[in-house]
Amino acid sequence: MSQQNDSKLHSDAPIGVFDSGVGGLTVAREIMRQIPNEKIIYFGDTARVPYGSKSRDTITRFSKQIVRFLQTFEVKTIVVACNTASAYALDELEREIDIPIIGVVKPGAKTASEVTTNGRIGVIATEATIGSQIYTKYIKELNKDVTIYGKACPLFCPLIEEGLWQDPVTDEIARRYLSELIDIDIDTLILGCTHYPLIRSTLGRIMGDSVTLVNPAYETARELKEMLEEKGILNQEHPGLGANQYQFFVSDGAEKFKSFANSIIKYGILSAKTINIEEY
Amino acid sequence: MSQQNDSKLHSDAPIGVFDSGVGGLTVAREIMRQIPNEKIIYFGDTARVPYGSKSRDTITRFSKQIVRFLQTFEVKTIVVACNTASAYALDELEREIDIPIIGVVKPGAKTASEVTTNGRIGVIATEATIGSQIYTKYIKELNKDVTIYGKACPLFCPLIEEGLWQDPVTDEIARRYLSELIDIDIDTLILGCTHYPLIRSTLGRIMGDSVTLVNPAYETARELKEMLEEKGILNQEHPGLGANQYQFFVSDGAEKFKSFANSIIKYGILSAKTINIEEY
Repeated sequence: MSQQNDSKLHSDAPIGVFDSGVGGLTVAREIMRQIPNEKIIYFGDTARVPYGSKSRDTITRFSKQIVRFLQTFEVKTIVVACNTASAYALDELEREIDIPIIGVVKPGAKTASEVTTNGRIGVIATEATIGSQIYTKYIKELNKDVTIYGKACPLFCPLIEEGLWQDPVTDEIARRYLSELIDIDIDTLILGCTHYPLIRSTLGRIMGDSVTLVNPAYETARELKEMLEEKGILNQEHPGLGANQYQFFVSDGAEKFKSFANSIIKYGILSAKTINIEEY
Repeated sequence: MSQQNDSKLHSDAPIGVFDSGVGGLTVAREIMRQIPNEKIIYFGDTARVPYGSKSRDTITRFSKQIVRFLQTFEVKTIVVACNTASAYALDELEREIDIPIIGVVKPGAKTASEVTTNGRIGVIATEATIGSQIYTKYIKELNKDVTIYGKACPLFCPLIEEGLWQDPVTDEIARRYLSELIDIDIDTLILGCTHYPLIRSTLGRIMGDSVTLVNPAYETARELKEMLEEKGILNQEHPGLGANQYQFFVSDGAEKFKSFANSIIKYGILSAKTINIEEY
């Protein structure tokens, strides 16, 4: 494991981004949009996806392996682009490494606590993220007077990965999951899984115009940019064409990943490589 | 790894049964029904489930680890109670161990080739099983004159695990997946994933009375019984109450597994233990 401290962090080093699979690409996409000079090493744990139905111990063990893999690229920072891993593993990862590490939960929680006016915030996410109560914890730290309603939506990821982004079945499942959040009159809904921005229009239509949707991917990229600026390690120059600015690694099925990734990111995924993450 | 040969196989040794998660319980249930004297060690790879969207290399590596784990119990035989693992890993597993090993694909293929009268057989399964063309290969070996139509149904497993066994959404998805098999007038449908018997009534209703559903779980238990009889290692005496006849192990989430398992198997899952399968 490479050891680094802030003074050794180089602005032209890449940013490590990881997720259980393809969902984190919505975060990578926001980073590409907001700080286009940065290099990214993306890892998707496609051999062990999904994380959202699994336990804290297992997700923490998987996340540590991935962080060790990303550190072989001497990344200057790591973005945990997975709500479940942010919920369960972020604290322990922070203790293990001495480069900055950002999860997607805190930035989303912060924005939601700021935009709510009636003090009722809904969170939709995986079973694991909802079970962890992590959004409730962070939001309550910022604003004691709000109430947070969590709802696990285990079918959203398989429906999204099947490509049913706009489909009557996804509508029907979304109406079932969201009905109780509509009934209790939330005015803010956190998309607490990195897949969910892909069905943002369906979710927005069902919730109605009076509900603000918070996309933690956007907020995370913004916080990442601020952090890099503060530490003086924002990359000032574009690495140039042919510089392998974006590299993608997966633990399984590189071709399938590439095809799905290209439907999310319009910058062109030149290649994705498969590695055995259990060796890290 | 324990080394055994037929002469050393004991009739009172347990049978190892494994699957990527809970689906293989439909196979375990058939074994319990058809040969009630047998002890079973069941392993569900719940930390890395599902297998059906993953590659041959990954599934073979996972399956080898599980076989090594099961061999620590000196099992007399192993049942690969997962179509995807049977499709991708069975041949390699057979070369690695010297106890009998049975997959779910061959028994299902054999029965389908026998029951079809119009020579048109449908197979529904995971992407990996369909992609492997394994059912086509086995059926063609038995009967050259049939045509096999495969259809991947990636949403069935998540819908079943969400408990929507009888639900309009599952009906709608099933109608979409099955429509082309109805159009080409198959008379036999293989339920090529161990989850699918749990929505058998939905599938039967949509396909209609003229189509025979083949459940490889049933056929596999029957073939297992015949093999144990032939080798003289069928357990003649019931192990008795309190003898820990059925033991369940998972790689994650033992409590959740137990709860789902109890909805499938009516014999009472007394306990399930979590182990780290990556250590095998």
